Amino acid sequence: MARALQLARRGLYTTQPNPRVGCVIVRDGQIVGEGWHERVGEPHAEVHALRMAGEAARGAAAYVTLEPCSHYGRTPPCANALVQAGVARVVAAMVDPNPLVAGKGLQMLQQAGITTAAGLLESEARALNPGFISRMERNRPYIRLKMAMSLDGRTAMESGESVWITGEAARRDVQLLRAQAGAILTGIGTVLADNPLLNVRLSADELGISGEVRQPTRVVLDSALQFPLNAAMLTLPGDILLYTCSADVQKIAQLEKAGAKVRHFSGNTLQLSDVMTALVEDGISEVHVEAGATLGGALVEQGFADELVIYLAPHLMGSSARALFNLPHIAQMSERIPLEIRDIRAVGQDWRIIASLQTRG
Amino acid sequence: MARALQLARRGLYTTQPNPRVGCVIVRDGQIVGEGWHERVGEPHAEVHALRMAGEAARGAAAYVTLEPCSHYGRTPPCANALVQAGVARVVAAMVDPNPLVAGKGLQMLQQAGITTAAGLLESEARALNPGFISRMERNRPYIRLKMAMSLDGRTAMESGESVWITGEAARRDVQLLRAQAGAILTGIGTVLADNPLLNVRLSADELGISGEVRQPTRVVLDSALQFPLNAAMLTLPGDILLYTCSADVQKIAQLEKAGAKVRHFSGNTLQLSDVMTALVEDGISEVHVEAGATLGGALVEQGFADELVIYLAPHLMGSSARALFNLPHIAQMSERIPLEIRDIRAVGQDWRIIASLQTRG
Repeated sequence: MARALQLARRGLYTTQPNPRVGCVIVRDGQIVGEGWHERVGEPHAEVHALRMAGEAARGAAAYVTLEPCSHYGRTPPCANALVQAGVARVVAAMVDPNPLVAGKGLQMLQQAGITTAAGLLESEARALNPGFISRMERNRPYIRLKMAMSLDGRTAMESGESVWITGEAARRDVQLLRAQAGAILTGIGTVLADNPLLNVRLSADELGISGEVRQPTRVVLDSALQFPLNAAMLTLPGDILLYTCSADVQKIAQLEKAGAKVRHFSGNTLQLSDVMTALVEDGISEVHVEAGATLGGALVEQGFADELVIYLAPHLMGSSARALFNLPHIAQMSERIPLEIRDIRAVGQDWRIIASLQTRG
Repeated sequence: MARALQLARRGLYTTQPNPRVGCVIVRDGQIVGEGWHERVGEPHAEVHALRMAGEAARGAAAYVTLEPCSHYGRTPPCANALVQAGVARVVAAMVDPNPLVAGKGLQMLQQAGITTAAGLLESEARALNPGFISRMERNRPYIRLKMAMSLDGRTAMESGESVWITGEAARRDVQLLRAQAGAILTGIGTVLADNPLLNVRLSADELGISGEVRQPTRVVLDSALQFPLNAAMLTLPGDILLYTCSADVQKIAQLEKAGAKVRHFSGNTLQLSDVMTALVEDGISEVHVEAGATLGGALVEQGFADELVIYLAPHLMGSSARALFNLPHIAQMSERIPLEIRDIRAVGQDWRIIASLQTRG
């Protein structure tokens, strides 16, 4: 199963919105087939592994990082393929997180006389697909917030001056986070202040993948539809979604002509819970947020931020500089927001902290 | 020399204001004697090592972490003892940092026909005695600032509520830092707000030392002499120095009767440069600061803070909470204060960051 997880990880930058899945087929203690899912529309991990195993699959054991599918989607059900290949035993690291189909794949296998088991290295398997699991279990995407700050927790000077807080290695590391995501989310404030591209600038070689680099959808929260027609983002190919409450039909038409898709929400200001639902409807399950203290603070305060990735730069920016999050309402120690720090490591001259938050469905 | 450094470290909690020094005597590839300096007034490392070596010292090599002394202080010069013991070679990790005597010990040895060398593992040897070296080279103490903050760089709520930001393991770690220091420095604001004891609460066993636990001198910067006569600090034995600009003879007499020593400075407000000079005059070379954002910020801003030890607690305290340092004057990115992060590690549920600042003499 450890090998299957390793194979699944090869899909880190390519499978979105599909899950990363790996499969290993073992007969008489020997690996006779292995495979992983690479891209939407291409065969699932089990199919690749069965093809490689050929006749050797008969009587063998299959290790899969996710319960084999039992339904016809873009491809035929993998449970069928395993039955037809004559495998004797299937071990899944986790059952399907979709409550409607969970266990059905294993059940189909059992009915065909195949021994099944589930739960081997489950937490590692879950960590592979936080977005897919979140979408299935909570009907909202997994939200990862990337921030850069000084040691004293500041992100920009009072004036707004902020570029190059962190070094080159950290900026490259951020590119890897962007490349994993289904979408990159920001607020209109960041667009107006920094005019960012929010694309993946690494090559397929640098990502260690074959084929083209997948550009995550860029999503901008823009209640009043202030997105400029000359925004740098519009100069690049790739999807741009503007979520707005504005009904300015002329601006909407101009923006759509310029290549963006505009989605309208009721009310005067976007509500984050509506945004979560819309992201799922737009096929997005793993979200990388690069935004300012306002959107970041709102995501944290309302319990939507699942993970913080903070690049800590080795300097002090002082007490007039801008705060990491706009979180003004915490008045007592008992109201502070607990985190679980999962990892701290050096990234070039900076340090990267990964922390989980307790969030709500 | 690595062994000599290891021995020297045994004096971490006991030698102040003397330096930590270790000595190993090697003959024919065998260690025949070793020693380290334990406390003021007790024999130096070389004397212990020579005693253990006895006649075996004749023709041997001595490895010392600091150049042997050449003058009569509280004990006779070690250079003499090495000559009398008949050692053939002396290797020092570093020469004496006191510019007035640097090299004289080695010179005395050379004149007696002993081969000498210096500089082996020098940076490790310097790291043993930052205070002693700072006092000798810069005529001011080494200043280590201990802070505790949330991940978003906050130390207390807006109301001042702050106790227990970090967990038990971090607080125990702070006890080890206190125990190393020659003095614990704070500001009157912290005394009035928290009424701290600022003592070492670990036993000799817990520190791994023999004999009594040395209590560092507690120094309070108190321009207007607001120190309360019922301060908790006065209930414990151990030196208390109050640095003040006040000439209130009655209050001074009361405080001195209560066990504190009061040192008067000219002007209306204490100047940190004067404080540095006074600390050296009071025999203090390694200072552990536990103070608020005001004193901490001033030490950083004026270039006196050599080292930050920051305990990072896994939570967010929000943007209304109090800043790590009161450093309001930084307006541009070019004015930010660079740090060198030397170490980050988990301490219980918290993380400890050790960073060096570029400081001035």
